[in-house]
Amino acid sequence: MAVAPWLGDLVAQIDARLRAVFAEAAERARATSPRAHELAEAVAELTLRGGKRLRPAALFASMRAVDEDAPIERALDASVALELLQSYLLIQDDWMDDDLERRGGPSVHAVLRRQVGNERLGDSLAILAGDLAAGMAWELLAAAPFPRGRAREALKAFGEMHWEVVLGQQLDLVGHADVGLTHRLKTGSYTVRGPMQLGALLGDATAAQLDALQHFADPLGVAFQVRDDLLGSFGRRGDVGKPIGADLRAGKRTALIAEAQSLLSEADGALLDRVLGNASAPDEDVERATDALLRSGVRERLEARIDALASEANAALASASLSEQGRTMLGELVELLVHRDR
Amino acid sequence: MAVAPWLGDLVAQIDARLRAVFAEAAERARATSPRAHELAEAVAELTLRGGKRLRPAALFASMRAVDEDAPIERALDASVALELLQSYLLIQDDWMDDDLERRGGPSVHAVLRRQVGNERLGDSLAILAGDLAAGMAWELLAAAPFPRGRAREALKAFGEMHWEVVLGQQLDLVGHADVGLTHRLKTGSYTVRGPMQLGALLGDATAAQLDALQHFADPLGVAFQVRDDLLGSFGRRGDVGKPIGADLRAGKRTALIAEAQSLLSEADGALLDRVLGNASAPDEDVERATDALLRSGVRERLEARIDALASEANAALASASLSEQGRTMLGELVELLVHRDR
Repeated sequence: MAVAPWLGDLVAQIDARLRAVFAEAAERARATSPRAHELAEAVAELTLRGGKRLRPAALFASMRAVDEDAPIERALDASVALELLQSYLLIQDDWMDDDLERRGGPSVHAVLRRQVGNERLGDSLAILAGDLAAGMAWELLAAAPFPRGRAREALKAFGEMHWEVVLGQQLDLVGHADVGLTHRLKTGSYTVRGPMQLGALLGDATAAQLDALQHFADPLGVAFQVRDDLLGSFGRRGDVGKPIGADLRAGKRTALIAEAQSLLSEADGALLDRVLGNASAPDEDVERATDALLRSGVRERLEARIDALASEANAALASASLSEQGRTMLGELVELLVHRDR
Repeated sequence: MAVAPWLGDLVAQIDARLRAVFAEAAERARATSPRAHELAEAVAELTLRGGKRLRPAALFASMRAVDEDAPIERALDASVALELLQSYLLIQDDWMDDDLERRGGPSVHAVLRRQVGNERLGDSLAILAGDLAAGMAWELLAAAPFPRGRAREALKAFGEMHWEVVLGQQLDLVGHADVGLTHRLKTGSYTVRGPMQLGALLGDATAAQLDALQHFADPLGVAFQVRDDLLGSFGRRGDVGKPIGADLRAGKRTALIAEAQSLLSEADGALLDRVLGNASAPDEDVERATDALLRSGVRERLEARIDALASEANAALASASLSEQGRTMLGELVELLVHRDR
């Protein structure tokens, strides 16, 4: 889909603010210790390398829905805080999964391992780089220009995001059976609901507006997760279905797999069970299981669910007292979050 | 030394508040996910197992120096935030050094490794337990009862502590030559200056009072570090000098070692260099080096420095506009921080 003009502007301004924040961090690093810049640079490099800035988009649309004259400037520090929280989580996530790549470059622990020539030390330094990012995120949020009396609510919302995402990561690591809950904790509050709450507070929202935005955010957050699952399993929307054999062999029990199991014939269900998490499953079985998944109709079912959730989100806006400009942006946000290609 | 009565009261109240905070975290964990309590309990267990609550003592004395009628209650949440920040740092520190013991029990990664029967997974969960503690610390601080308009300064001070201590840990890990800077970053701002600043803000301090307390805190922080070094090298004050051979063999280049080198004869200096960081140094050499350190007068020199720093701290109070009660407490704080036995 084409990117809305407001979003292009926002991303450019966020990136400019990120660069300013990292220039200031470099200054501060120099004043702190002769090695501090190494950690600060690792965080900067990862954060500036990419990222779709979806969370800032949710925050900004929400702020404008409440106060259509709020200047973009007001949204920047809280947006940067969200991006830094994200960097902190990615750094830890990559280390925990030992993923050596992220956003088309080396992950932070991979960079630091190479830099110091020692795996264990590099890993410890990566954890510290994450700590630095988290601390900076909290600092920025604490200093962001919330209207009088709203900063405390914003910090509370940020704490809730931090808490949930850490516990979602725990469930993911221990391979908890309730994949829906894992996904909800990992992405729910800190991708959609949390950023929208921060945006609404920046706009000095009434209780009714906060409530309406939450009723918008909750189904949208779930739709975002379902899209994530579909993209993880089948690739881009235009694709006929990229081979998902590797995922099956790795045994990642996604929400999609759980859903598919209820749709499969007994024989196909048994086949899927044999392949799932079985690194030495014969190629032929993996291909047949992939085929069964595609034929099961799970993809169409999840696409339909996404549409229903998106309608539910849009309906929550209908009765709310929000600006026209904001409504339009929120509608575009729905498209952005649930009809994305990556 | 005898513990001042106010300190005993304070520690009891802090511990009660810690238990209340952890009971609430257990509730919140149950509401979040079926596994959340495992991380919350690991944090609670470490935090409640011990700790001298020195940081809350610094915070409280400082609050009372500014506002002698401030109720103890007002100091509790910020104190708990300091203890949780401390737990987060200890969890990470122990994992990075692979220390399996802390405060007379297993360290958090040791507990979690055993709990899940997998070293790598246990380590990742320990990092997440630390994250939880850090998030809770920020949340508590953000909600603490700072007088109107002072919360932002308090959060800024907390951010500064977080930043410095992470970068101190980095220098420690990479074995940076400037051990004074490492120590200053690791303990300076978050042991004395930061807690005192938070206490002063809780008491709604004037700029002049904040300034006086900082002039008190800075030499006190350095004295605290020197005492730490002495205790690490020679043990309790009454001891004749516990064998420090293990430290020498491990090659830990403490501030004490650096200081001693300037006092030793050329031959003894060369001997120390041969032993330092040399795991296979003969016992006889290690004993002679230990002996040389004791004879060098470094201990007496550092004791004299501590006394001078304590006097400097006390002098900073003389001209300041602080309550009599607070002055007395701050004087007792000096004793507590620099004449401690462990």
